[in-house]
Amino acid sequence: MFQSFKTPSDPSTGKPRLKAVRERMATMDIDVFLVPHADAHQNEYLPPHAERLAWLTGFTGSAGLAVILPDAAHIFVDGRYTVQVRKQADLDLFTPQSLIDTPPRKWLADTLEAGMRVGIDPWLHTIAEVERLEQTCEKTGATLVRCPVNPVDTAWQDAPPPPVTPIRIHPSEHAGRSARAKLRDLARTVRDKGASATVLTDPASVCWAFNIRGSDVVHTPLTMAWAIVPARGRPQLFVDPRKHDGDVTAYLQDHADLSAPDAFEDALAELGRRAKKPVMLDASRANAAIAGAIEAAGGKTIAGTDPAVLPRAIKNRIERRGAIDAQRRDGAAMATFLAWLDAQDPATLDEIAIVKRLETIRAETGDRLGMPLREVSFDTICGSGPNGAIVHYRVDEKSNRTVMPGDLILIDSGAQYDDGTTDITRVIATGTPTEQHRRHFTLVLKGMIGLSSARFPQGTRGVDLDVLARRALWEAGLDYGHGTGHGVGSHLGVHEGPQTISRHGMVELKAGMIVSNEPGYYAEGAYGIRIENLVMVAPAKVPKDGEMAVHGLTTLTLCPIDRRLIAPKLLDRSERRWLNRYHARVRRELAPLIEDRTVLDWLEQATAPVR
Amino acid sequence: MFQSFKTPSDPSTGKPRLKAVRERMATMDIDVFLVPHADAHQNEYLPPHAERLAWLTGFTGSAGLAVILPDAAHIFVDGRYTVQVRKQADLDLFTPQSLIDTPPRKWLADTLEAGMRVGIDPWLHTIAEVERLEQTCEKTGATLVRCPVNPVDTAWQDAPPPPVTPIRIHPSEHAGRSARAKLRDLARTVRDKGASATVLTDPASVCWAFNIRGSDVVHTPLTMAWAIVPARGRPQLFVDPRKHDGDVTAYLQDHADLSAPDAFEDALAELGRRAKKPVMLDASRANAAIAGAIEAAGGKTIAGTDPAVLPRAIKNRIERRGAIDAQRRDGAAMATFLAWLDAQDPATLDEIAIVKRLETIRAETGDRLGMPLREVSFDTICGSGPNGAIVHYRVDEKSNRTVMPGDLILIDSGAQYDDGTTDITRVIATGTPTEQHRRHFTLVLKGMIGLSSARFPQGTRGVDLDVLARRALWEAGLDYGHGTGHGVGSHLGVHEGPQTISRHGMVELKAGMIVSNEPGYYAEGAYGIRIENLVMVAPAKVPKDGEMAVHGLTTLTLCPIDRRLIAPKLLDRSERRWLNRYHARVRRELAPLIEDRTVLDWLEQATAPVR
Repeated sequence: MFQSFKTPSDPSTGKPRLKAVRERMATMDIDVFLVPHADAHQNEYLPPHAERLAWLTGFTGSAGLAVILPDAAHIFVDGRYTVQVRKQADLDLFTPQSLIDTPPRKWLADTLEAGMRVGIDPWLHTIAEVERLEQTCEKTGATLVRCPVNPVDTAWQDAPPPPVTPIRIHPSEHAGRSARAKLRDLARTVRDKGASATVLTDPASVCWAFNIRGSDVVHTPLTMAWAIVPARGRPQLFVDPRKHDGDVTAYLQDHADLSAPDAFEDALAELGRRAKKPVMLDASRANAAIAGAIEAAGGKTIAGTDPAVLPRAIKNRIERRGAIDAQRRDGAAMATFLAWLDAQDPATLDEIAIVKRLETIRAETGDRLGMPLREVSFDTICGSGPNGAIVHYRVDEKSNRTVMPGDLILIDSGAQYDDGTTDITRVIATGTPTEQHRRHFTLVLKGMIGLSSARFPQGTRGVDLDVLARRALWEAGLDYGHGTGHGVGSHLGVHEGPQTISRHGMVELKAGMIVSNEPGYYAEGAYGIRIENLVMVAPAKVPKDGEMAVHGLTTLTLCPIDRRLIAPKLLDRSERRWLNRYHARVRRELAPLIEDRTVLDWLEQATAPVR
Repeated sequence: MFQSFKTPSDPSTGKPRLKAVRERMATMDIDVFLVPHADAHQNEYLPPHAERLAWLTGFTGSAGLAVILPDAAHIFVDGRYTVQVRKQADLDLFTPQSLIDTPPRKWLADTLEAGMRVGIDPWLHTIAEVERLEQTCEKTGATLVRCPVNPVDTAWQDAPPPPVTPIRIHPSEHAGRSARAKLRDLARTVRDKGASATVLTDPASVCWAFNIRGSDVVHTPLTMAWAIVPARGRPQLFVDPRKHDGDVTAYLQDHADLSAPDAFEDALAELGRRAKKPVMLDASRANAAIAGAIEAAGGKTIAGTDPAVLPRAIKNRIERRGAIDAQRRDGAAMATFLAWLDAQDPATLDEIAIVKRLETIRAETGDRLGMPLREVSFDTICGSGPNGAIVHYRVDEKSNRTVMPGDLILIDSGAQYDDGTTDITRVIATGTPTEQHRRHFTLVLKGMIGLSSARFPQGTRGVDLDVLARRALWEAGLDYGHGTGHGVGSHLGVHEGPQTISRHGMVELKAGMIVSNEPGYYAEGAYGIRIENLVMVAPAKVPKDGEMAVHGLTTLTLCPIDRRLIAPKLLDRSERRWLNRYHARVRRELAPLIEDRTVLDWLEQATAPVR
């Protein structure tokens, strides 16, 4: 998924790049410069021109920060990337550090000396981050300098241009609510907060609010754009004019005044000069340059969550319908793929072949069922045997592994359709699974079922439910080192806030939110297990003699769970009932979407009751 | 438990008291004065002279705040006390308000006008509270005035004096660690935080650190005292000299410089003048007057949790042993009591008679087993029939109810012994319980067992486990409106922080912590169910093939759970096994402590296996 620019693991590029950046730092009288894995929108997937960290260090992980000093350089990554950073970065140039054990702020607090000038590109750091950096600098006597020009950008002379892909309208039949109505709601929130305007900085918020989509980054159908939504009057939309014409231009003009992104900073200044009330900014999403532009012009800002976040997470009736359809279609593709996989001699397969086959079947199934696959919602994870135990494993030519009979194969994949975004993980047995395979798989399954069958009152948050997915593993002295569930967008990000099912999930689970349910177990060097369904928070029937409304999690994902890996004696009666009902539903709902007799036969057998 | 001073529900006292307070407010040029339910130590149980809220308003609940204006007065209470406040306060004088729906700060923000002077007694509000009040005043243009004299105190001319009860030494055989060692640890924490000293403001912290106890408040064996613990050198202890003599004086002098409490404020000022480094104060426990005294003398303060809180919560080997012994002894008393109760004709009993009988048996059993009952750890709750559904019900002459055959009786009680503090709730059937009684009781029991049998890794907090106690109820559309568990002290408070099992329980559960496990269900107007055991966090055996250390909750409380109320068909196999093993253990451990043949027979039958 990453650009093919040369990485510095080739010594011919690493040294001169770092040298060039240091020269710019010297010119700007900067002692320390921070290079985060971030763009101006705080996107999860960066457009190529924002891959500054990868260009400079070679490290292509999804989170990280380089700290450049005149005679040293450090790269901070989390536990997922400890191995990868050592493979990708030139360790003569960069010292790896742990984002968790020695957080950069603590490291800076210990390292900075009075008088030092610490440079940042304010477009790449959130307001909250910059506030914390300011505190660190204050404590140490250093000065935080918001650099008007990023030294990496001046050094990176052949950087690719920002992406320019066509904007498409996300039609009402999928969006379920007009842009006009959404923008009106946002303006009302702005008024309720006593603000003059808010700035939508997350392209997912802009795309959701205006009902538009694009292809500026991989995997998530976003167009890079900013929007200013005032308490009253017309919004302003900042988007490259090359991205739209004809009907799309007319549609956008219907909802906002259009400007190019290079007019954004001036518009912020104008807002700062003009506004009688403060501008509401989301301190954990908006970058510090935006706040700076408003405040430099005399404006005030107040903190407030991006008002699109919650309504975007709570799917409306049409989006819920779309999600159901998308997961059913995706399930038909998965079943077709799994039937194919079961028919192969494992020894003839490697991970790349499996990934390619799955993507081909997803595309074919989408076409056949009249809703084309837009793209995969993330790089498919296919980890056979020990590769399955590497949680963020992505196959490449080097790591590609031929399946060995008896391997478990972990396949985590998803799709972007116009009506919804999918994300599913299944683990497939080749050969005869061992008793340990079955025990571990069944413990994970118990967790998945435990969360799936939960009932809970209004006000319940993800943190309150997380243990239901871990309980059986904990009892066995086992666990998994990731959250249990993340939010999922409606033809938007496959990772979408604000809700999660995890020890950090402090957001209330509201009816209409979609989350993943994906406990796992990873036997290092041997195999990985993860079972993932998407579920939707929904009102449940009030039980007989019940006294309060309860919610439940309606399972959206429809795809058999490998029965060969289940040890029925480890399931209790209610878990077995859940599983058999689920499989009956999978069969009933997928069969009408499948034409191939072989696949239907496979489905019949794969969903037979477990006793 | 409350003093017998006349309450203002007698109109002859209410009006003149409020009038007298208002006259003082006028003299001091105060427009609004706050009267919280609090003393200078933020105790849970107030000494009589600190019952200012009760004296002024008649309201005797454990939480509340009165806001006095020249021509209006409001009393803020939470949901527990909505009914009680209307019975106790004169509603012509005080308007009840909801602490939750209209929090006082919000109410003040809406009510205050620019220029108003809002008076508080800084000894009665924590640093954090005062900071928030400052913000509210700032926003509204009002001024917060820290009154040097509390107008309630000047109006309350016949107020009782502060309590003066003898201090006793809490010996090593129960404390398990010397005061010298504890004070050394506290001083190390102070140094690690870069502070010059800390002030222990919570009498439970002072009593724990110095291994002393007293009887200054009901239910909790505390002596009211302050302590200053410097980073280096001798601590200072501020305690009424009439409370100690002879050996106790010598013991205290061994560990600290002794002064009377009225020297405390000067000592704080001296600390502020002298200290080169800041003084560490717990903003959520220390009152604002303490910070004010230090800062007025030129000293600095920094925020840091009371360093005694965590070591006090994590019981040492001796304290753990003591807790086990205390709960066993208490279980023998409870079994004796329950055997007696079962033998009575319910119609001859009322709640007061039951409470008295239980307290008598506790005292007798303590004497017989060589560890006298110091006192009950809170006012015994005995709620028969509909009274059981009132969560904070305490019987009095007015509410006292004769038991009706068929009633459920909820009995929540506890004891203070030198070796530990107990807290247990059992529900007893009289007559033949209905199917609904049994269903609700069994759902609560499933939750109690669910939490009791949890295994969890290091780092798990109370919030992560709370659902295990609620899950079965939630599935039935039922819930209870209180937390599942609170910490418990070692011959200290029956409510002790910092850990809880609840949706707010963000503190890690560490081996040696004691918590209650008390899910419930309350059928308004009919009956209440709560089953409460104390449990201790303890390392559990790593299961076969387990990969991580796990903790579990070892049940401390030993007392039969009424089998007549259990519907065995609602329990799954593992729950039934837990129950039968628990009952077998109760029988095995209590029998040696019981002499009475009738009680032994009762115990045998009450702990027979459920099939």
